[in-house]
Amino acid sequence: MGISAGDNTAILLIHCPDQMGLVAAVTDFLHKNNGNVISLDQHVEQDIQHFFMRVEWELEGFSIPQEKIDEFFGTLVGRKFQMHWQLHFTNRKPRMAVFVSKMSHCLYDILQRYVSGEWAVDIPCIISNHDNLHYIAERFDIPFHVIPINKENKAEQEAAELKLLLELDVDFVVLARYMQILSDEFVSALPNRIINIHHSFLPAFKGARPYHSAFNRGVKIIGATSHYVTADLDEGPIIAQDVVAVSHKDSITDLTRKGKNLEKVVLAEAIWLELQHKILPYRNKTIVF
Amino acid sequence: MGISAGDNTAILLIHCPDQMGLVAAVTDFLHKNNGNVISLDQHVEQDIQHFFMRVEWELEGFSIPQEKIDEFFGTLVGRKFQMHWQLHFTNRKPRMAVFVSKMSHCLYDILQRYVSGEWAVDIPCIISNHDNLHYIAERFDIPFHVIPINKENKAEQEAAELKLLLELDVDFVVLARYMQILSDEFVSALPNRIINIHHSFLPAFKGARPYHSAFNRGVKIIGATSHYVTADLDEGPIIAQDVVAVSHKDSITDLTRKGKNLEKVVLAEAIWLELQHKILPYRNKTIVF
Amino acid sequence: MGISAGDNTAILLIHCPDQMGLVAAVTDFLHKNNGNVISLDQHVEQDIQHFFMRVEWELEGFSIPQEKIDEFFGTLVGRKFQMHWQLHFTNRKPRMAVFVSKMSHCLYDILQRYVSGEWAVDIPCIISNHDNLHYIAERFDIPFHVIPINKENKAEQEAAELKLLLELDVDFVVLARYMQILSDEFVSALPNRIINIHHSFLPAFKGARPYHSAFNRGVKIIGATSHYVTADLDEGPIIAQDVVAVSHKDSITDLTRKGKNLEKVVLAEAIWLELQHKILPYRNKTIVF
Amino acid sequence: MGISAGDNTAILLIHCPDQMGLVAAVTDFLHKNNGNVISLDQHVEQDIQHFFMRVEWELEGFSIPQEKIDEFFGTLVGRKFQMHWQLHFTNRKPRMAVFVSKMSHCLYDILQRYVSGEWAVDIPCIISNHDNLHYIAERFDIPFHVIPINKENKAEQEAAELKLLLELDVDFVVLARYMQILSDEFVSALPNRIINIHHSFLPAFKGARPYHSAFNRGVKIIGATSHYVTADLDEGPIIAQDVVAVSHKDSITDLTRKGKNLEKVVLAEAIWLELQHKILPYRNKTIVF
Repeated sequence: MGISAGDNTAILLIHCPDQMGLVAAVTDFLHKNNGNVISLDQHVEQDIQHFFMRVEWELEGFSIPQEKIDEFFGTLVGRKFQMHWQLHFTNRKPRMAVFVSKMSHCLYDILQRYVSGEWAVDIPCIISNHDNLHYIAERFDIPFHVIPINKENKAEQEAAELKLLLELDVDFVVLARYMQILSDEFVSALPNRIINIHHSFLPAFKGARPYHSAFNRGVKIIGATSHYVTADLDEGPIIAQDVVAVSHKDSITDLTRKGKNLEKVVLAEAIWLELQHKILPYRNKTIVF
Repeated sequence: MGISAGDNTAILLIHCPDQMGLVAAVTDFLHKNNGNVISLDQHVEQDIQHFFMRVEWELEGFSIPQEKIDEFFGTLVGRKFQMHWQLHFTNRKPRMAVFVSKMSHCLYDILQRYVSGEWAVDIPCIISNHDNLHYIAERFDIPFHVIPINKENKAEQEAAELKLLLELDVDFVVLARYMQILSDEFVSALPNRIINIHHSFLPAFKGARPYHSAFNRGVKIIGATSHYVTADLDEGPIIAQDVVAVSHKDSITDLTRKGKNLEKVVLAEAIWLELQHKILPYRNKTIVF
Repeated sequence: MGISAGDNTAILLIHCPDQMGLVAAVTDFLHKNNGNVISLDQHVEQDIQHFFMRVEWELEGFSIPQEKIDEFFGTLVGRKFQMHWQLHFTNRKPRMAVFVSKMSHCLYDILQRYVSGEWAVDIPCIISNHDNLHYIAERFDIPFHVIPINKENKAEQEAAELKLLLELDVDFVVLARYMQILSDEFVSALPNRIINIHHSFLPAFKGARPYHSAFNRGVKIIGATSHYVTADLDEGPIIAQDVVAVSHKDSITDLTRKGKNLEKVVLAEAIWLELQHKILPYRNKTIVF
Repeated sequence: MGISAGDNTAILLIHCPDQMGLVAAVTDFLHKNNGNVISLDQHVEQDIQHFFMRVEWELEGFSIPQEKIDEFFGTLVGRKFQMHWQLHFTNRKPRMAVFVSKMSHCLYDILQRYVSGEWAVDIPCIISNHDNLHYIAERFDIPFHVIPINKENKAEQEAAELKLLLELDVDFVVLARYMQILSDEFVSALPNRIINIHHSFLPAFKGARPYHSAFNRGVKIIGATSHYVTADLDEGPIIAQDVVAVSHKDSITDLTRKGKNLEKVVLAEAIWLELQHKILPYRNKTIVF
């Protein structure tokens, strides 16, 4: 089930070294404070003995005030077990910035979901290095910022982008076929807060022109991959992937056409998971609850 | 490979009782008249001994004038073998009408492909029984006709729709989640020229509310089906299907959200195949070349 | 992760009306008795407000003796919350009977997994209404019982089968393309303990000859479904499903060939889930943890 | 449709530079000699302007004797158009050698299809570098040759293998999880006649231990790839691929278990296509008719 506009719940995403009593400690904390658990999922990564958990509970009736939950949880549970945790509330809509270049298919797909109410999200801005898709943003009444980037101005333009994102209180960034490589500085400023769609089945065909590479290799299946952006190009934690069958009959144009369907759906899946606070990135992998 | 705006080819879709020499007769006709074959595919349905063929060739250099091809083919080949055939030219864009009700996901998907040039198609009108999606048509500068339908006015309103489709020289109709059942009269007027998207994996869950039925049955996979509309509801020739995994965690809302992705892609696939003249419906099935 | 031969854990499968404190009560019980939780998963079916849970913990170090766990859990937790529960131990191999008729593909697949150690299972017998596959059982040194069934002897032969299953202490039965319909009496004697593979994407093409039906309907995808057997033919709770693309080029023979791949894999998946005690059937659906 | 034991047809696999009249020339040749075409498929690779074709026709009634077809086709058609062609007859069963090491899942799968008559094939030998699976070959009454390979004896042992394959009149070799890298000399002796199954979605995770690599990368989908073996490891023309979804819950053991299902099915698909003479390798890609 998903989070929708009227929800009023809290979500804890937790990870720490595995040890006895972790689930009991968290559920006991919630139960004693009258928290009704809606969903709970946990995972132990056996090879590194590391514990991961997501729990969602109703805020109504919970005896600790919303603004005090973080402090109480930290004192009563979190620090005792060396936990790292994030606390989210579904009564606050996440704020998402969308970066685009010239291709419209992912942008339209995102905006259709946004205006139809499929997602509980705010989109305070669309940023592009080109003006081509400006008209689409206008049609959907979303501010569109053209911030052209070249070798000379990259540092200052990215700084302008970061300033804008900060001003607009943006939670995470979606690269909807944004065809600029982000600098390490930009990526470091938003750790695990930038979601990209790469038009191949990673780790195959990293980098530029993956459909051309797929065509030349003669693969019988192509894919798309959504992932968090890290300093290593196309190497960040993978969130979602999907594939479609192709054959010798498919030209590069056909691969591109078929691949766009994947790109839209796989990127939307990653955004939906992010909005649900269902993704816990750890090192170069993700736990998707 | 697909048909694009600059193409200048002819396509023959042929079917007839199977007999010796069919392929030789067609290719000989093309070869003697200097027709360069771009693609050729044939199929024999063994259980009914019926032959199907699609061949596409370049018009440039072909020694029979475009407007005379039908006559010459019929006289020299077609009638000798009791063939049924359709002749299409890629230098003429097909004209497609879109019918919608209140849901926007398929409509946006179609319009994005249309404006981005993915398809070589004209969309002279969008028709709806509701006004809800009027604003989308306006954004894309496509005439939007509200033709409300109820039990009393169904016959005359459908007649008005048919008149409009005729005036606008529409080749085929796409039901993009149009939530009205068409009368037998309407369907008969456009045989194998109406494409519907049904939000289930047909023949499972025919009729209304398939996501509810899928949820209640506890299936582990849901699907979507595009098909030609016939007088029998959800029984027409299937063009394309796709599926996605679901689990006990998915509510009806989740099934609907996941299913919409399928609906868009499966409907778009059917439209693309129609635009390429790659579908040959025969009885209650399709040959998809 | 799966259960393997050296494991020494306990598994609780629980369901009851949803209420506050359920997870806390179970994890508190385990934690206080020094039980190290290996995995925990829960689900609330919102539309019926019903709670489901699977928890697995290490027996080593657990302060309640293995043979007393059921009593203690029932007294201290289970009955307080009107829970229904099953308790399983991975230090005891489940015992599985396999029913076959004339087709060998599922049987070979099961036996290969069995002898290669993929599954922690014992197979004390193979039962068939025909002698055809006797030689395969001999090759794998598994007792093979031919129990022919016809209208006249059905009741007594099924009684003989049940007696044999009881004597051999069989936990569950797998119908590996067993082409006899079981009587209601037989099914009632083994509720949710008989797993069938049906060679269609249920609920499409219930009953006999689904590949013929799929061919005649002209579907573009075929499937296979594993499910628990109930008194309603092909209507029992679905465990797993999978599909494969087909086209007009596929004859019924091709559908059968492609479908057999699905049948093997989907049946094996259901057996694996059963061996892991990951399936909780409830009414006509399953929770697959 | 597939080739079965009673078939009596001829198959031509043709490729040459694209030019006008190719299909007409071939079909005219068949038609004039009373050949009833059962299936015909062609493809033009546009970027290299190269033509590919597969045509199958009935030998009964064909006016050229079977042993003369190659000569007549070459003289009357093939050499005129600089064609390369292969001629196959379905009244002769292909002979396939199977190479294995220690894992049994692909071998059992192949042998089950063989004995159940799914394939029209002869298997004159199984070759292994280990004795582990000897007992399986015995159960199926197929000669099993243990030919251990190490650095010192590789050249002579491979020579012994080639000698054996020649003596047994083997058409093609299947590496059913054979864990030895073949020398360039061995591969060169059997160009496009060795089919391998690699347990990853190539080109991702080439080389050893792909499931470990997939686990470490955190992919959400794993795959398997069947391909012709060339001198470049895991770089040969791809025949078939398939994938399955995985998650953070899947350990390396789980990936291996799930992957084995793919390996069996994808290898069997490649063998089936080879037996149908449906694969035309060209450069580093395949046309799969």
